[in-house]
Amino acid sequence: MLNSLRLASRKNHPEDTLVDIGNNVVIGGKKISVIAGPCAVEGRDLYLEVARWVKKEGGHLLRGGAFKPRTSPYSFSGLGEEGLRILAAAREVTGLPVVTEVMDTRDVELVARYADVLQIGSRNMQNYALLREVAQTGRPVLLKRGFAATIKEWLLAAEYVLSSGNSSVILCERGIRTFETYTRNTIDIGGVVAVKEISHLPVIVDPSHGTGRASLVRAVARAAVAAGADGIMVEVHQNPDCALSDGFQSLTLEAFSELMQEIRLIAAAIGKALAAE
Amino acid sequence: MLNSLRLASRKNHPEDTLVDIGNNVVIGGKKISVIAGPCAVEGRDLYLEVARWVKKEGGHLLRGGAFKPRTSPYSFSGLGEEGLRILAAAREVTGLPVVTEVMDTRDVELVARYADVLQIGSRNMQNYALLREVAQTGRPVLLKRGFAATIKEWLLAAEYVLSSGNSSVILCERGIRTFETYTRNTIDIGGVVAVKEISHLPVIVDPSHGTGRASLVRAVARAAVAAGADGIMVEVHQNPDCALSDGFQSLTLEAFSELMQEIRLIAAAIGKALAAE
Amino acid sequence: MLNSLRLASRKNHPEDTLVDIGNNVVIGGKKISVIAGPCAVEGRDLYLEVARWVKKEGGHLLRGGAFKPRTSPYSFSGLGEEGLRILAAAREVTGLPVVTEVMDTRDVELVARYADVLQIGSRNMQNYALLREVAQTGRPVLLKRGFAATIKEWLLAAEYVLSSGNSSVILCERGIRTFETYTRNTIDIGGVVAVKEISHLPVIVDPSHGTGRASLVRAVARAAVAAGADGIMVEVHQNPDCALSDGFQSLTLEAFSELMQEIRLIAAAIGKALAAE
Amino acid sequence: MLNSLRLASRKNHPEDTLVDIGNNVVIGGKKISVIAGPCAVEGRDLYLEVARWVKKEGGHLLRGGAFKPRTSPYSFSGLGEEGLRILAAAREVTGLPVVTEVMDTRDVELVARYADVLQIGSRNMQNYALLREVAQTGRPVLLKRGFAATIKEWLLAAEYVLSSGNSSVILCERGIRTFETYTRNTIDIGGVVAVKEISHLPVIVDPSHGTGRASLVRAVARAAVAAGADGIMVEVHQNPDCALSDGFQSLTLEAFSELMQEIRLIAAAIGKALAAE
Repeated sequence: MLNSLRLASRKNHPEDTLVDIGNNVVIGGKKISVIAGPCAVEGRDLYLEVARWVKKEGGHLLRGGAFKPRTSPYSFSGLGEEGLRILAAAREVTGLPVVTEVMDTRDVELVARYADVLQIGSRNMQNYALLREVAQTGRPVLLKRGFAATIKEWLLAAEYVLSSGNSSVILCERGIRTFETYTRNTIDIGGVVAVKEISHLPVIVDPSHGTGRASLVRAVARAAVAAGADGIMVEVHQNPDCALSDGFQSLTLEAFSELMQEIRLIAAAIGKALAAE
Repeated sequence: MLNSLRLASRKNHPEDTLVDIGNNVVIGGKKISVIAGPCAVEGRDLYLEVARWVKKEGGHLLRGGAFKPRTSPYSFSGLGEEGLRILAAAREVTGLPVVTEVMDTRDVELVARYADVLQIGSRNMQNYALLREVAQTGRPVLLKRGFAATIKEWLLAAEYVLSSGNSSVILCERGIRTFETYTRNTIDIGGVVAVKEISHLPVIVDPSHGTGRASLVRAVARAAVAAGADGIMVEVHQNPDCALSDGFQSLTLEAFSELMQEIRLIAAAIGKALAAE
Repeated sequence: MLNSLRLASRKNHPEDTLVDIGNNVVIGGKKISVIAGPCAVEGRDLYLEVARWVKKEGGHLLRGGAFKPRTSPYSFSGLGEEGLRILAAAREVTGLPVVTEVMDTRDVELVARYADVLQIGSRNMQNYALLREVAQTGRPVLLKRGFAATIKEWLLAAEYVLSSGNSSVILCERGIRTFETYTRNTIDIGGVVAVKEISHLPVIVDPSHGTGRASLVRAVARAAVAAGADGIMVEVHQNPDCALSDGFQSLTLEAFSELMQEIRLIAAAIGKALAAE
Repeated sequence: MLNSLRLASRKNHPEDTLVDIGNNVVIGGKKISVIAGPCAVEGRDLYLEVARWVKKEGGHLLRGGAFKPRTSPYSFSGLGEEGLRILAAAREVTGLPVVTEVMDTRDVELVARYADVLQIGSRNMQNYALLREVAQTGRPVLLKRGFAATIKEWLLAAEYVLSSGNSSVILCERGIRTFETYTRNTIDIGGVVAVKEISHLPVIVDPSHGTGRASLVRAVARAAVAAGADGIMVEVHQNPDCALSDGFQSLTLEAFSELMQEIRLIAAAIGKALAAE
């Protein structure tokens, strides 16, 4: 079934790939990485407060959208370059590298000037021109699984990046679309395990989009680490009820602290540790 | 449920939208339009032969991919500008306008120089930068439904085009992804009827991608017209077994002729007619 | 893929199966049959009124649930044997045979005493004990597709009936469960065509459950006939707003009359006719 | 959304339900239970060997099908009462209670004579007559989620059992049907967490059916425990390659031993322990 894979296949590359982000952050191997921050960058002070909290609790990367894909053209779609500047300021303050989404081939150069990791969002997983353009920056790429992409299609999307000469791909499972509507998406935990078996690339899990309900995030994050994921990506906000997007799935600062404690314990139970610990 | 719709909503625009393509082709209203041609433009002579056949049998637009989205980076991905030139030549010869896909914001100007209708493919339905860029050419836009997009998301994607000042949007149902694997996709025939009720935009159906099996195409095309679709889009190839992509779902020239005859009869049964008849 | 099929396969039985229901009703071949009636049998007078209307408009069989499967144990679940008696009375009055669902192996004998066709509902498509018990009555069986059953599983369920010695199986596509929520289910119109190709058994379509919206039923019924289905099964109610179950998807008496007129025209367009015309 | 729930709702019953199976086995609360055994009971000696291994490694219940639902009527469908006798013998030998599936209302009394827990399989989750009949035995009921059932429908199926006077319901997530085909089903790990939040009933996870690949089972079992499931149910076979059904997803005896060790560690990491330890 997966014969069309070349560079992404573990058959051709048995050892785990470690993706070096810079700032002493490496994703993969025996270490668990945590990427955290609000869904969208909404303003400088708000963002820096969350960033400091993430740093204090032991998080490894900051997330935050400057360019936001929105289902409706009438929704808030991000601060654009101003958002990127805030992300860079947060890196300055905390020392943590930043990951942010890019949606247009014409923005790739701009975003790469500010961000440490370029994120391909779920809707753009098969935007092949974008995959190639992002690859050519040389920056590590966080490749979210399309919400209706098979494992094979996901890995072939990674193959687009790899075959463009960029070997720093981090896969991110963020839930697939199913008939179930109680949760926003359905985290494919078996798929995470399968991808770790099929491919050498690191895989992280986003339980925020994967559940769409803050009350479910911590437990699914624990499950991800127990299943062998290399890290998690979660939305955190000072005041989820006031978030400009996706507040319903954002952890409070306090809940994030508890999450860190819990995954530390799960990591230890399977012979791993949080990165840099 | 559909309160977020503004310009695409039939509530705000009760009468059917007719999209004028030029060359005396109008999509919508009481007329059925047929878009046909091979999946990819593979070469000049092959393409012109199919184009002449489509014209002879009463087809209204020519299709053919010059830039092809492919799941694997190692598959044939189209002839690029050479393919566009062939499409323009076919228009010259037949008088039929041409529709072709554009995948990258940076190619929009190029493709718009050659094509009469710009197609947004299923994988790019939520590529919002592309939607806006395509809208701004002023060319009619054929907006394929994302293979896992809800009706609401599909109409909101149309809303991106409409709100960018381009009112010439043709929706295209091409099958959604379900658990069924016998067919390539599952044509959402109820969705076609629903969209005609919710929106004033014309809707066509692509039974080639929608079934992935040539033997099922004609019957599904008849169903589409009977359900109220404004037209169909089908793949036709002289020698489907040798097609560079999607041959298994392409009609032969003879089968296309029979299809035209069949939908002529179905159209009449519901008080419509093929366009230009 | 479908090698496990034996008795249901067209390879082994190329000609179309005609299912003889009695009372001069035969399903399959070049004739279109219409099964109509309310979702549930709610009372004698109401039922007889609908039954007479169905007869007058040219319908061929009466439907109505006496035993209703309900998602919640607290919902109305049918009149039981009293409902069966009303169905028999309606047959007496109209001369039309009746089809009704049976859900429990222990009720099969009872239901078979009253009904002309035994229906296996979508939830019970893989209730194998029930399939075998129903088969052994010798009555024709209307086998609804499970709402998440593949075409292969559906035909293998038919194979349970056939291999129990009962060759009178009518398949019924009633929509599958997908991510789309605007419609109650997604009618798999391509699946209908596929099943007609793979199997010799007659296939009818239920656009009422298949869409869950009365305003979409007529168009989908037209599509079903145009695609080659052997008939349709629709819910009709004097006063849909007051129906004890599924009123939102029931046609009014007037809409049913229009439906009959429309499918008569579509049938003619593909060289068929309504049964008994 | 879940207002139709009464007896299954945590709102009406805040504390966790503990289901007492007898033989000192209780499911729920702070304890993790493990149910293991081959898919089908294939013979006395084979079964007893697996049963002793499960007991030795600390498993809590034995599983094994005597009546097997099979998609094709031509597949092996279990040993019937002979299989039940073997299960009873295994209980005798090991002291572990046994769980087995019942598929026909008419078999419920027979199966209840031998089994400690009656299993409702995925295909029968909405077989309401069966739910009621099983409830009335007073035996604990293991209710597998239908492979295309929403969380709401699953809990309403539990409500059928509860409202029939039987409060001993154990829910079992076994994977849902999605577009992904690499795994047999998609384990809904977020759904497990959601159900624990919505309902007071214990929930276990079946990673064997949930993945359909033995190599993925252990990791998904760890994830289930980390997410808060009350136990797991896994298929174990001496020689998976020779199993009469589902061998491809069965653990070897050695792999089962490793699984027990791993979930012991995960349980401890979240403040739980294996039952009876």
